Amino acid sequence: MSTHTLTARLHGAGIGRGLAVGRVLRMPDPLPEPATTASTLTAAAELTRASTALAATAVDIRDRGARAGGAARDVLEAQAFMAEDPTLEADVEARLETGLTAERAVYEAFASFRDLLLNMGGYMGERATDLNDVSQRVVAHLQGVKAPGIPNPDYPFVLVARDLAPADTALLDLDKVLALITSDGGPTSHTAILARDKAIVAVVGVSGALELAEGETVIVDASTGTVTSAPSADEVAAAETTRAERLARPAAPTGAGALADGTSIPLLANLGSADAAADAVAKGAEGVGLFRTEFLFLDAQSAPTVEAQQEQYTRLLAAFPGKKVVVRALDAGADKPLSFLNDSAEENPALGLRGLRALRANEQILRDQLTALANADAETEADLWVMAPMVSTVEETRYFTALGRELGLKTLGVMVEVPSAALLADRILADADFASIGTNDLTQYTLAADRLLGSVAALQDPWHPAVLRLVGEVGRAGQTLGKPVGVCGEAAADPLLAVVLVGLGVTTLSMSPAALSDVRAELLLHTLDEAKAFALTALAANSAFEARAAVLEAQAAQRDT
Amino acid sequence: MSTHTLTARLHGAGIGRGLAVGRVLRMPDPLPEPATTASTLTAAAELTRASTALAATAVDIRDRGARAGGAARDVLEAQAFMAEDPTLEADVEARLETGLTAERAVYEAFASFRDLLLNMGGYMGERATDLNDVSQRVVAHLQGVKAPGIPNPDYPFVLVARDLAPADTALLDLDKVLALITSDGGPTSHTAILARDKAIVAVVGVSGALELAEGETVIVDASTGTVTSAPSADEVAAAETTRAERLARPAAPTGAGALADGTSIPLLANLGSADAAADAVAKGAEGVGLFRTEFLFLDAQSAPTVEAQQEQYTRLLAAFPGKKVVVRALDAGADKPLSFLNDSAEENPALGLRGLRALRANEQILRDQLTALANADAETEADLWVMAPMVSTVEETRYFTALGRELGLKTLGVMVEVPSAALLADRILADADFASIGTNDLTQYTLAADRLLGSVAALQDPWHPAVLRLVGEVGRAGQTLGKPVGVCGEAAADPLLAVVLVGLGVTTLSMSPAALSDVRAELLLHTLDEAKAFALTALAANSAFEARAAVLEAQAAQRDT
Repeated sequence: MSTHTLTARLHGAGIGRGLAVGRVLRMPDPLPEPATTASTLTAAAELTRASTALAATAVDIRDRGARAGGAARDVLEAQAFMAEDPTLEADVEARLETGLTAERAVYEAFASFRDLLLNMGGYMGERATDLNDVSQRVVAHLQGVKAPGIPNPDYPFVLVARDLAPADTALLDLDKVLALITSDGGPTSHTAILARDKAIVAVVGVSGALELAEGETVIVDASTGTVTSAPSADEVAAAETTRAERLARPAAPTGAGALADGTSIPLLANLGSADAAADAVAKGAEGVGLFRTEFLFLDAQSAPTVEAQQEQYTRLLAAFPGKKVVVRALDAGADKPLSFLNDSAEENPALGLRGLRALRANEQILRDQLTALANADAETEADLWVMAPMVSTVEETRYFTALGRELGLKTLGVMVEVPSAALLADRILADADFASIGTNDLTQYTLAADRLLGSVAALQDPWHPAVLRLVGEVGRAGQTLGKPVGVCGEAAADPLLAVVLVGLGVTTLSMSPAALSDVRAELLLHTLDEAKAFALTALAANSAFEARAAVLEAQAAQRDT
Repeated sequence: MSTHTLTARLHGAGIGRGLAVGRVLRMPDPLPEPATTASTLTAAAELTRASTALAATAVDIRDRGARAGGAARDVLEAQAFMAEDPTLEADVEARLETGLTAERAVYEAFASFRDLLLNMGGYMGERATDLNDVSQRVVAHLQGVKAPGIPNPDYPFVLVARDLAPADTALLDLDKVLALITSDGGPTSHTAILARDKAIVAVVGVSGALELAEGETVIVDASTGTVTSAPSADEVAAAETTRAERLARPAAPTGAGALADGTSIPLLANLGSADAAADAVAKGAEGVGLFRTEFLFLDAQSAPTVEAQQEQYTRLLAAFPGKKVVVRALDAGADKPLSFLNDSAEENPALGLRGLRALRANEQILRDQLTALANADAETEADLWVMAPMVSTVEETRYFTALGRELGLKTLGVMVEVPSAALLADRILADADFASIGTNDLTQYTLAADRLLGSVAALQDPWHPAVLRLVGEVGRAGQTLGKPVGVCGEAAADPLLAVVLVGLGVTTLSMSPAALSDVRAELLLHTLDEAKAFALTALAANSAFEARAAVLEAQAAQRDT
């Protein structure tokens, strides 16, 4: 008879097919915004509190830096300087004069400093995010609570969080993370993207995840989307055996992507810089389906020159002789604004002057980029395709393709991320040479749910039948007109969903290189007719959940026959 | 031989059918945000500049108030106090210590004060907008330029603006405005809404409008969407004659809305408070197609009680015995956040926790509202229908209708504003009793273009074939399932577009009462078959512009036969 605590199973969306066993480490929630109620202390007393907290935080951060060493030390040294900044302390003091608490004054002073930094330009995030982190630490010190932030124990762990922001993951020690579990977020969340990219075992959107206790042992199985809490010793042993078996399996199939009936479905890589090309080739990418060019414009006060861009593009194209490389024109705005291109005052930047809209308002930047691409194309042997981000109308399509052809490019297409572009795909593909569906943004707009907002994450699921309807519209237009239709959003990296997309008429799939082998293996299990049947099943469902469940059931039925 | 300057004709979207002749008055653009570059003066010198400008602005505002008198005096007196606020001046002083210019310090201090006000709750806008206005005046004084803001000359004028914000229109003296012309904005902009509501002659989205010179005479014809600059004396005389003729015409038809073949198309009113009911009935409304309930929650720190709401709903329903009244549950979030319901920190509030999503997260507020409606329904003779805002899934539909039925309501439906809801209309209408299409938001999400953002206003056009496709999806689902489908967005108030909507399967139209007679007249000119032909014509177009032009041409061809 066992004295073992009752085992519980929690469910979510598994990313990849890995399995892990380990101890839970909980990511602390951010502190709530300090109240604006007036202080009961004098301004002088509050100033003493604030100064003490700022100094102590600087010491603490510097200490953590010394322990971490390496690059982290420099990052943390810079953060310590922020806490010691005399201008910032003067700002806190001025705010205290108005009767605020030290907590509120610190919060506001850091926020105002952060806005100033953001307005001064450069790629959003880096320093501004650091300021938020320092602000949180000072406020935590004032409130006598534990500072939120990345935990860093000296043992391997299963990280449990509401969700992870890019800033959270930047300092995460990936060697120690056995698995990720989140309560919020879906298959397109940052956590899912990180997990897929780094091949970390992950289950996201797990209801009940936040009830998991610090230090308890859990089994995380991404292939079934299951988290087992308080497992018995037998269950742990069985999981370890399964894990060893999976690792011992022969490597996933390599070679060109194809269905069971031989239908070719080229599998391409999503890349963010030319440096990543070799890794993509090693993982079996047949080309590049999405090359993001934003990195060239990071931290820049103005756009890079034609020559500087050309050098980078040439380096990329040289890595793929004879292969297709799809480059996306600069996609600035929304969550990645550039000071020289975007207006920081937009109320809803995701619905603002972003992507091609922003390029068109700054046409010289677009002309320079397309010229650099045409020059690089002439120097190399790759098959260069160029596409515009955030196209919403036929007229925008014609503008982009005409400009690209004028500047010497041969193959010009559009990203389909806006519902109107999907609904008018037949007219857009009459002009464009190809379309590439960005399922993350397409889902965001179709469901009107911010892809980066936790409270509406449940709506952000590319399995939603409305999203699949729109994918199907583009697929049908592509087939009618004989034009290729790719998917380069996270949906393409979900093996089962990838099969559904092919059934909807998608002809190529592009994803993080780490996801290629799983998708390649899944495609080989199904014929085109089966993929079409899966697509019809998904389209007939009432919800993303029902669509996924119905296709899983159809897949199981297919296995049994 | 004439010495007359060359006449020029500019084109845009006309709102209504009016005609006006008058002198141009230009609305000044807002000042650009002051630069963050360091001051070349000492902090003390900058403080003297800032204090002088603040004091002078207070005097100027108070002076304008005294001249205006009445309610404006109180508003402006409150604004003068803002410029004299010692806390604000202390904040400016603290910011000057960091080396900013007076312009920048004033700008930042007002912005921070405004954010504080917004965070303190209440309905967004009123005071925060006033602070922006005062801030602009102080900065203008510092820069030695004319303060932007509403001009108020003592003669009637044709107002020319980039676009009008709600704050701009609040103080506008409507008795003096002969017509409105904007360069930005489309038929759903605030300017268009204001013009339609107040029956002001307007042409919006006029390319070249900003080149019109202050004081020059123009002819504005909304029926053709034309602005004639530098008209000849003959042209002015002809316009005056036409204007007199139009005014002398017999009143527009009254009675129930119907097509030429007798097909009934009930014409309903959009109302924002029970007080407006009598005016709507006088203008021939056959009921209410959209009753907005946000006004009950304005300026409140918490939701009103069941009793307080019930009283208002009873007053509304009592005004429409035997008539249909469609009430929309509280639609907070996006551009109308409520502190007790919405999270002010959303990056893209239009894609956030708004409408039904926010109500569901605060279910007691929704339960109270539906209970108050059920109670009011029991006391009155109107035919009460209740609908949920911002529904995006089948599951949300089921949640709302089940809750409404549990609380005793009989007819429950959904707003279709999100593309996914339109794409799944067949499944949503299997559960809901009716659907009402909000074309403003539906256009915003379908084109991914913020409806309040000038730089993407050209995309915000409900004539876009992608939007019409989605309307058609809902119309078809309604006809298949025998469920009514209304439109309550601004599109319903565009007479020709109203005919197209009917051709797409829409069965009722709801609009500002002022628009009812024009729409009623247009419907009577077309049969259902003609409306369906117009709809097919519009759907086949490549753009909103081409759709409108093609239907206008079809309409002209129909007139000629």
